[in-house]
Amino acid sequence: MAEEADNVIYVGKKGVMSYVLAVVTQFNKGAKSVIIKARGKSISRAVDVAEIVRNKFLNEVKIENIETHTEEIDNEDGSKSKVSAITITLTK
Amino acid sequence: MAEEADNVIYVGKKGVMSYVLAVVTQFNKGAKSVIIKARGKSISRAVDVAEIVRNKFLNEVKIENIETHTEEIDNEDGSKSKVSAITITLTK
Repeated sequence: MAEEADNVIYVGKKGVMSYVLAVVTQFNKGAKSVIIKARGKSISRAVDVAEIVRNKFLNEVKIENIETHTEEIDNEDGSKSKVSAITITLTK
Repeated sequence: MAEEADNVIYVGKKGVMSYVLAVVTQFNKGAKSVIIKARGKSISRAVDVAEIVRNKFLNEVKIENIETHTEEIDNEDGSKSKVSAITITLTK
């Protein structure tokens, strides 16, 4: 199994501040970059996380890159769906 | 009042295919670039629009740039809120 990097934060359905705290913690532990990933409806929340981190908490942090792609997911009934995904790279 | 550019598509609460059609129409009318804008929860839909346009309709279209920022909006009660926004530039 691939090793999970500490500096990758997966944004899901929790409150936005949980993820903001996770990102800020990574930077405070010395990370030079943090990658925020989200899929589907959580994409909006991922953008909120990036904006709140750099506007309210860490003004020296910049959005280095934003990429989108399409992922295929397996549904419970065995069919497949496509879902949009975003990767936001923050650096300081 | 500022002139609205035809090649800017504002993504809101309509179905995703309405916006896909609007983007494809602009390219078919000769636009070299189309800018997709959205705020708040519509950001996820804006990413869907960009992904569907380039994967299903116009394979030669590339995402040239994605930027996020924070906007201040006036609430009905006179107070102000901050909302995240995204600008996705597609080019062919």
